[in-house]
Amino acid sequence: MSIYDCQPPMCLETIRKTLVSFSPAVADMPPERKPSAEINDEENFFVPPLNFSMVDYGIFRSGFPDTANFPFLKTLGLRSIIYLCPEPYPEVNMQFLNANGIRLFQFGVEGSKEPFVNIPDDLVRHALEVLLDERNRPLLIHCKRGKHRTGCLVGCFRKWQNWCLASIFDEYLRFAADKARVSDQRFMELFDVSGIKPIPSQDYLKS
Amino acid sequence: MSIYDCQPPMCLETIRKTLVSFSPAVADMPPERKPSAEINDEENFFVPPLNFSMVDYGIFRSGFPDTANFPFLKTLGLRSIIYLCPEPYPEVNMQFLNANGIRLFQFGVEGSKEPFVNIPDDLVRHALEVLLDERNRPLLIHCKRGKHRTGCLVGCFRKWQNWCLASIFDEYLRFAADKARVSDQRFMELFDVSGIKPIPSQDYLKS
Repeated sequence: MSIYDCQPPMCLETIRKTLVSFSPAVADMPPERKPSAEINDEENFFVPPLNFSMVDYGIFRSGFPDTANFPFLKTLGLRSIIYLCPEPYPEVNMQFLNANGIRLFQFGVEGSKEPFVNIPDDLVRHALEVLLDERNRPLLIHCKRGKHRTGCLVGCFRKWQNWCLASIFDEYLRFAADKARVSDQRFMELFDVSGIKPIPSQDYLKS
Repeated sequence: MSIYDCQPPMCLETIRKTLVSFSPAVADMPPERKPSAEINDEENFFVPPLNFSMVDYGIFRSGFPDTANFPFLKTLGLRSIIYLCPEPYPEVNMQFLNANGIRLFQFGVEGSKEPFVNIPDDLVRHALEVLLDERNRPLLIHCKRGKHRTGCLVGCFRKWQNWCLASIFDEYLRFAADKARVSDQRFMELFDVSGIKPIPSQDYLKS
């Protein structure tokens, strides 16, 4: 018996109708991401990128990854990266992406501009659509420090997940800390998620 | 074709040997946890518990959940809760657990004692073993505020995952913020993860 056989496929519609959403079962748990014993020495510790965290199943967030973070990033099995800065992606990072079959989605949101509300709403909307497309996961969202631009996109995703604003801001503040911007929070408050729908897995499996 | 059919079972040993660990595929992604349109109004926003976050696939952390958090917790499809306080679990929380088939693992770590290093190491060790047992996931780790006791257990888990101490502390500090304790960090630094092994899914599926 395979561990992938013990969970019957669930109907997405059923889940939506019942509010009690999917209960990930044994079938959906990847094996442990524990490296083998022989590499478990001081020189082989993993270094996640600055401000790294898991957002949801197959969705991660962080600041800008550098070469020291590449061995760790490999363990995530990424399919895509959502990069939220206008600057070109560094050559060494592009090489890492190419070597690991990771697709880059760049949305050039200016980081220096305050307030963030001046940033075209549709850029964040497009980034959210990429995020909601299951074909792109596992994916990593990052900007420079993983605070403002990344925080806003994650906040819009939480809004789409129907989180209350207090909890969305609480999460934003955990990463932005003393660099938090009221304008970012206002952007999330105003962001309209109605009409944004994910591409359900069924649709692309048929294609 | 089911979305659960497209990923062949992987050999855990292969993954351990290659360091490049499991790449979660479409098969491992649960459907969206988006509530149905008809409940998407102001009265039905989800309220995650204080300091809520996802730690890894099927592992969540938070402060003490109250009744306002129950609708949100239902969406996580929890199988277990690791509760790190010595106080009895409140009746209303027990009712929620019973109604949803969630098993409670209580490890009574005294929260008021400083430094945390006085807490028997074996309590955290047992909690980590529960955490590493895939049969218990999805699971939620919580104490009172989701800062110290929860932070230490998550830190020990990160150590087991071979994260560098700097990144472990960075994550701990994100939740503990101005309540951070050097003694907690020292506890994580000293905690010995050698010899701690997860129960691989293969083993219990045979039983």
